[in-house]
Amino acid sequence: MMTPEQQRITAFAAERFGPKAVTTDPHDIEPWLIDWRRRYQGAAPAILSPGSTEEVSALVALANDLGVALVPQGGNTGMVGGAIPPADGSALLVSTRRMHRIRRMDADANLAVAEAGVILGTFREAAEAAGRRFPLDLGARGSATIGGLVSTNAGGVQVLRFGTMRALVAGVEAVLPDGSVHDGLSALKKDNRGYDLNQLLVGAEGTLGIVTAATLRLVPAAAARAVAWVGLESPAKALSLLRRLQAATDMVESFEIMPDDTVALVLAHVPGTRLPLAGTHRWHVLIEAVTSDPAAEAPATVLERMLAEAFEAGLAEDAVIAASEAQAESFWRIRHAISEAERSAGPAVQHDISVPVEDMPRFMVEGGAEAEARFPGTHAIAYGHLGDGNVHFHVRAPKGVDRNRWYAEDAPHITRLVHDMVVAAGGSISAEHGIGQMKRDELARLSTPARMAALRAIKTALDPKLILNPGKLVALAPETLSK
Amino acid sequence: MMTPEQQRITAFAAERFGPKAVTTDPHDIEPWLIDWRRRYQGAAPAILSPGSTEEVSALVALANDLGVALVPQGGNTGMVGGAIPPADGSALLVSTRRMHRIRRMDADANLAVAEAGVILGTFREAAEAAGRRFPLDLGARGSATIGGLVSTNAGGVQVLRFGTMRALVAGVEAVLPDGSVHDGLSALKKDNRGYDLNQLLVGAEGTLGIVTAATLRLVPAAAARAVAWVGLESPAKALSLLRRLQAATDMVESFEIMPDDTVALVLAHVPGTRLPLAGTHRWHVLIEAVTSDPAAEAPATVLERMLAEAFEAGLAEDAVIAASEAQAESFWRIRHAISEAERSAGPAVQHDISVPVEDMPRFMVEGGAEAEARFPGTHAIAYGHLGDGNVHFHVRAPKGVDRNRWYAEDAPHITRLVHDMVVAAGGSISAEHGIGQMKRDELARLSTPARMAALRAIKTALDPKLILNPGKLVALAPETLSK
Repeated sequence: MMTPEQQRITAFAAERFGPKAVTTDPHDIEPWLIDWRRRYQGAAPAILSPGSTEEVSALVALANDLGVALVPQGGNTGMVGGAIPPADGSALLVSTRRMHRIRRMDADANLAVAEAGVILGTFREAAEAAGRRFPLDLGARGSATIGGLVSTNAGGVQVLRFGTMRALVAGVEAVLPDGSVHDGLSALKKDNRGYDLNQLLVGAEGTLGIVTAATLRLVPAAAARAVAWVGLESPAKALSLLRRLQAATDMVESFEIMPDDTVALVLAHVPGTRLPLAGTHRWHVLIEAVTSDPAAEAPATVLERMLAEAFEAGLAEDAVIAASEAQAESFWRIRHAISEAERSAGPAVQHDISVPVEDMPRFMVEGGAEAEARFPGTHAIAYGHLGDGNVHFHVRAPKGVDRNRWYAEDAPHITRLVHDMVVAAGGSISAEHGIGQMKRDELARLSTPARMAALRAIKTALDPKLILNPGKLVALAPETLSK
Repeated sequence: MMTPEQQRITAFAAERFGPKAVTTDPHDIEPWLIDWRRRYQGAAPAILSPGSTEEVSALVALANDLGVALVPQGGNTGMVGGAIPPADGSALLVSTRRMHRIRRMDADANLAVAEAGVILGTFREAAEAAGRRFPLDLGARGSATIGGLVSTNAGGVQVLRFGTMRALVAGVEAVLPDGSVHDGLSALKKDNRGYDLNQLLVGAEGTLGIVTAATLRLVPAAAARAVAWVGLESPAKALSLLRRLQAATDMVESFEIMPDDTVALVLAHVPGTRLPLAGTHRWHVLIEAVTSDPAAEAPATVLERMLAEAFEAGLAEDAVIAASEAQAESFWRIRHAISEAERSAGPAVQHDISVPVEDMPRFMVEGGAEAEARFPGTHAIAYGHLGDGNVHFHVRAPKGVDRNRWYAEDAPHITRLVHDMVVAAGGSISAEHGIGQMKRDELARLSTPARMAALRAIKTALDPKLILNPGKLVALAPETLSK
């Protein structure tokens, strides 16, 4: 059921932009109303798919006039329900799927301009075809879109060297809540004209504007890479190893840590996986080193030397460097299969958190012990991007619990404890997945009043009618929410 | 003459923070009421110098209650009048001079926390003493403060490799207009908790908050450097040379271009300067290459090889690599003495502009010709940071003009032309100096309505009483200005 205002917008889109721009068949809409982890179910009477920035602009201007909420959506690969519309059907979905042009690919300048609907995998391939590399990668590369990656400041497994999406965005084009277009695509290395609207839109989760295109930085193509698997005793030793590597070379692009029982879970549940090392180790680290310089010392040689020094220093227990691309991929497969393995191991509550890098080893050990002590029978594990101070901190349910009861009753308390520990450590309750609807109220609970007041002031100043992605990210004051 | 409200704040500061926190003697105040280039003269009945973040917070909260304007000031080295109070004496100056602690220097983490009043030169030395390097440098290093550098997103001669201040800021602590404290010092590599307030405060020129401290990134200490002087034919060839260098090595930290007549001006006016090359060249380039890796190929060897290739390719006409530190400094002295030489050469109107790097060679040549054609007798020169797309574009007055008349009548028209050309090229009318009061109205004239509306909305949302650095950066709508 559409409201008369929603009908007007839908009719406007159909008439002005053509039939491709409007989807109203419930069967076609349905897959876009639920997130891929099936945690958030929304409703929407239509998906609008404008084909250009001008069309997005016209659509948003009309929606603003009529006070109709819009929820922007890219590949629908989000982890926090940020692209799922409200359950009451009050919002229309705006898909960027028809805006999939790469407008510019400038290898000399190491820059490219991609529209919001360009798929990450497609973009990475285009950069490679141009002899360059786009150094951001994540599991959802086949579906995630540039617009979504910008709007969520996406991270992934290559952040260590090149940073998150924020560091890779040189410019943003977006339609603001009143329908006006912010054109920040011109990639200026120096530009001091006041508040940085491009950076404000990165990670704003579509609440301040609909990102329609972005200018993205490219890096030189990889000339050689090496992947190593290291067994070691503790996260503290892992961090010491990382610091040594980073002091000696800038080649390290990934440094992923996993506890032994998590690796064992993968080996038990995921066919075709095999432990790279023969012995037993409490912690495992996956390292990837890359160079773009064909004349540079080979990454494998660098890692070999550095790991030999790490044995001498008592930091590493054992290590192996992949002898082939296939072997390198098999190492990575273990890391990437953790989520899959975890699902088959029973209920778990997951947290995407960060703390200052130096504090992460302590947090992984003490935080895990604290969670297990406070919730007897649970099992805490932490794995992920040690060098970014970002681990995925999961707490598994005690064996034999009722799944639904545990998720409904215990999980929220566990999450509260983990978030409190993170805040006490000066960390973030959302390292890379964003806030969306999942963490909106936790953000409000755990932010300082100064911070929440600033977020609310910015949101309501730029989107006074609250039409863009309502209910996400910023918990508004009660009086504003009820508007 | 103080208003009763100003008196209350001054008395509060004296009583709560002690006599050091208040300066009311006009002789002591006077030097801080005019910028160092003596273009902007303000007035203020007192300078308040809080000694801690808590004191700044108490001060701002009271000023906000009473509706008294505050102008934050660091080293008073700004180029656009951004730290000079209004001429009507309606604002109090807030100096960060007593907040000069380096709170943390963590070489392992490559991070440091410095208070707003720490002098750049002092901070650079502290980083060096810790075996690291802070890769931002500019002429005013002996006076410019961390707070000012953050608030103006300072640039300088090392931006090419490590970026502007924005890229070097890992966290910001600031007092917001209502007196609340934004504590963003925790340096998280991944943090997706909504709008990035740290980045919003960088370059906000004190209009959204008073920066009290910052977490800054350090880089490895330099193991070796090389400085080269190259004579070449055109900016286009200079850019081709830069692209070659950048494709081959990441050592290039500075790439400064200067036209021949500007270099000649330095040689004529600045004692002790001497041209590094014997022949005549239309353009000169100063290159600095640095490595932190003692085992890497020496920067001088890399430059030597690359410059030899550049001769072969017809890009460079002649070049010399400094044989000693003293010689390297003498090359740099020519570049740094340009402002001084220009002042002795008569009136000139200066523009700190940027365009996309690829377009800069064309802009330097065609923009200069256009300005000279439209204003007969003038002489346009452009020099500076070619690799950042940022040149200082100066137009010298015709010989024999009346200085005051020319500045008052012709200069504004020239500036308007230059700014229009910059905007047409998708560039910025303020590359590194900021907006302040100098460019406030030009920013309003040349920004899209969407951009100005966003800047105004953010300013008025976060500082509804308009107490922080009024009249700077954002030209408010007439009805708000008259408040």
